[in-house]
Amino acid sequence: MGKQQNPKTAISPTREEDYSEWYQQVVKASDLAEKSPVRGCMVIKPWGYSLWENIVKELDAMFKATGVKNAYFPLFIPLSFLEKEAEHIEGFAKECAVVTHHRLEKGPEGGLVPAGPLTEPLVVRPTSETIIGDSFSKWINSYRDLPVLINQWANVVRWEMRTRVFLRTSEFLWQEGHTAHATEEEALARTRMMLDVYTELAEKHLAIPVIKGRKTAGERFPGAVDTLCVEAMMQDRRALQAGTSHFLGQNFARASGIRYQDANEEEQFAWTTSWGASTRLIGGLIMTHGDDNGILLPPRVAPAHVVLLPIARNAEESALVMPYVDSLAGALREKHYGRRPIEVEIDTRDIGGARGWDWIKKGIPLRVEIGPRDIAAESVFVGRRDRDHREKVSVKRGRFIAEITDILDSIQNALFDRALAFQKAHTTVMDEKKSFYDYFTPSDKEKPEIHGGFALSHWCGDAACETAIKEDLGVTIRCIPLPGALQDDMGPGGCIACGKPSPQRVVFAKAY
Amino acid sequence: MGKQQNPKTAISPTREEDYSEWYQQVVKASDLAEKSPVRGCMVIKPWGYSLWENIVKELDAMFKATGVKNAYFPLFIPLSFLEKEAEHIEGFAKECAVVTHHRLEKGPEGGLVPAGPLTEPLVVRPTSETIIGDSFSKWINSYRDLPVLINQWANVVRWEMRTRVFLRTSEFLWQEGHTAHATEEEALARTRMMLDVYTELAEKHLAIPVIKGRKTAGERFPGAVDTLCVEAMMQDRRALQAGTSHFLGQNFARASGIRYQDANEEEQFAWTTSWGASTRLIGGLIMTHGDDNGILLPPRVAPAHVVLLPIARNAEESALVMPYVDSLAGALREKHYGRRPIEVEIDTRDIGGARGWDWIKKGIPLRVEIGPRDIAAESVFVGRRDRDHREKVSVKRGRFIAEITDILDSIQNALFDRALAFQKAHTTVMDEKKSFYDYFTPSDKEKPEIHGGFALSHWCGDAACETAIKEDLGVTIRCIPLPGALQDDMGPGGCIACGKPSPQRVVFAKAY
Repeated sequence: MGKQQNPKTAISPTREEDYSEWYQQVVKASDLAEKSPVRGCMVIKPWGYSLWENIVKELDAMFKATGVKNAYFPLFIPLSFLEKEAEHIEGFAKECAVVTHHRLEKGPEGGLVPAGPLTEPLVVRPTSETIIGDSFSKWINSYRDLPVLINQWANVVRWEMRTRVFLRTSEFLWQEGHTAHATEEEALARTRMMLDVYTELAEKHLAIPVIKGRKTAGERFPGAVDTLCVEAMMQDRRALQAGTSHFLGQNFARASGIRYQDANEEEQFAWTTSWGASTRLIGGLIMTHGDDNGILLPPRVAPAHVVLLPIARNAEESALVMPYVDSLAGALREKHYGRRPIEVEIDTRDIGGARGWDWIKKGIPLRVEIGPRDIAAESVFVGRRDRDHREKVSVKRGRFIAEITDILDSIQNALFDRALAFQKAHTTVMDEKKSFYDYFTPSDKEKPEIHGGFALSHWCGDAACETAIKEDLGVTIRCIPLPGALQDDMGPGGCIACGKPSPQRVVFAKAY
Repeated sequence: MGKQQNPKTAISPTREEDYSEWYQQVVKASDLAEKSPVRGCMVIKPWGYSLWENIVKELDAMFKATGVKNAYFPLFIPLSFLEKEAEHIEGFAKECAVVTHHRLEKGPEGGLVPAGPLTEPLVVRPTSETIIGDSFSKWINSYRDLPVLINQWANVVRWEMRTRVFLRTSEFLWQEGHTAHATEEEALARTRMMLDVYTELAEKHLAIPVIKGRKTAGERFPGAVDTLCVEAMMQDRRALQAGTSHFLGQNFARASGIRYQDANEEEQFAWTTSWGASTRLIGGLIMTHGDDNGILLPPRVAPAHVVLLPIARNAEESALVMPYVDSLAGALREKHYGRRPIEVEIDTRDIGGARGWDWIKKGIPLRVEIGPRDIAAESVFVGRRDRDHREKVSVKRGRFIAEITDILDSIQNALFDRALAFQKAHTTVMDEKKSFYDYFTPSDKEKPEIHGGFALSHWCGDAACETAIKEDLGVTIRCIPLPGALQDDMGPGGCIACGKPSPQRVVFAKAY
């Protein structure tokens, strides 16, 4: 007997072999999205868009439960608006799509060329603080008008030079919340509240464990006083930001003239916040739960929960199997999982083993095979996406229907537990500069793409130390954890770069 | 006794006094939307956006019930893509927002100027046939891949010179469906099926009666073989298009290379369709149901169904009234109307009569006043938005809860019936050229803004006659009614312009 062969994988290369290429291949094999002919823009295919719709539904319901209302503001922002907040325009000027003309006409060489130059260029929104601030300045007059709690679901454009589907695209879909308050305390509380919403979305619905923290001044949103974030660990041990919530102080209120009369009839600037999450989360889902056979979708946001795969060798068997399958689908669809009915796909394609593999690659939580023998036994043959693809169990039909929500919960929890164990396994308290540098430098044996992790190390607060580490290792401070965000010893110590006193550990990592 | 005064209206001017200005004032008073500082773009405020969300929910469910799946395609279209279909680019070249640069940098005068010129200009999508066609050309190889049924919810930009909130804005929100089929018959059937969906949306949900028809060659979508549409009558008797469905033949399949191998392994071009409806529908809602006190929202799409208005003169009364109000709200919210729970607002503002008027202007279907006397009688005091604002009735609390869905149905039906009666009253069979010209020319006694209506007159099919009438009167052929769309005598006759034989009557009107 020879050495046991590795089981064949549906995705090639595997994560170990070439992580970046694995990611691209998973996106393709799972049918979530594809590159478009427009530089840096993606096409979100139906399976991927349905996943986004489910994320939107959950997040939108959580926003509304906190009193937020949706609205819609212009796609275009006059250049002069962006310039009102100096740090803000500085942060976005290098990656703006600029509209300069409003029609096309025949050029000297016969083809169409831009015509009708605009007197003021318009920027396609990279974010909407300034244009929404303009509306707030009209809506808000008195303390009685506050708070104003608004969210917008929209597309935004940031002209990225190196793009990667879902993770970094020139156009992406997101939501941006914008609120205005009478007091600093209330605005701070809202900033924190929305971070909790993103935490719940990530952990409960996407099964992605996150660390709550605050950005350093160097990593803050341009124009913010404070940026809170939730950081997740991908399978190459890099960090991905899964949501941010900014306390903007009175900066944007000053820039946009958002003033109100307080109870003493004195004029004050409002305190504002903004917070957002985007289609980047789908990249995070893939890199948290994907394996060498494709993606694994958490049941709470999966476009469909279960696929029924009828097995019939001829018309006679088909006449037996199909009514059983349809009746099972009907019974499952009457049940709910979370806020949605159980979503059932039926795949009758006659393409052999490729059929089951298609659904494995697409990450559907449950595959159910149904043939004449299963029907004779009043049972179904069930495979879970979080288990080995060869592990399938025969379950009585009635029991499967009765227990499907428990099974889905079990998958949801298994994904979260696995991801949390991975994050913990690659999070290390580190106090020695040399071991810190070794940690973030791939050894000869390691694949350069997969190494390191989260280092919990001290930082004195000096931007120079932050910059030195970034330049040496490509490692940045992902966040200064909020009190209680981590169990480890977070007390004071000495800066990993310069040794000077540091009030607490921070999370260092390479990042997307 | 002097002459009876007209009751004061909440909107000034009234429809009779100045229809265009009435429209602007209703949009403002109802808090649906406002103009933005960006030329031709609007800000959709929470009340208006929630209305749009409800329209989206209904339409999206209808699309999905026909097998359509949502996806998302790039905002930007390379100029060369638009140029692939000659009529198409011709139709949109005059009103395109063109992105020519991808960053901003300090200019000679210190301010920021566009930099990083693009090698090929990008057009902000005015519609997406060409960019979606590119994806279809990759997705479709065999007849087994067909049909492909896709819809996109998106923003689009058409640089309009004269804009009007909701009705004609440079940026608007819409959905655009795009399908590809193996046969002409199937594509034609889909074109017709989606027209039926728009009819159902308009009549059942928006309470707007429509006439189904087909556009003349001159009014067709640029690049389409056939454009079907539904046309509604506004209160100034002009027509508004409430949805279009285009049969594109093989034009866009040829332009984008959408080919498939048929069952005989021969290569064929696919047959495609596209269909859309937009935030313009909200303009249609306002102009169909609005009155001199504001808008009236059909219950099926209203952001909220009922507002509870507690009446308490002091803290003691408030302590009595508020628990009753909260309990009533709870009981109502447990019920459903259509696919949504009953949506209840509670307005506790202490602003006197302005409170009730705010909700009248905003068009909420039901206003319910609750004071100590109502509570003593176990009743509530109910005003319907479709009745005179002074007409309110006392109803037992239990009966109100039990019957609220019937009351909402009654309002929904009343709005539709009223609009249908209006449309019929201003639709006239007309066979004399002189009376036709008189019909569309305001007399001295008439306000120039409100006159005419729909003329059902004969047209020989000659574009010259269509153009002559358009130039003389500003009147166009809104549609050639589909068989059965109208009850009137639709048989052959003589052209209203030239007298030559005509196969059937068409709908002439001034239009938005």
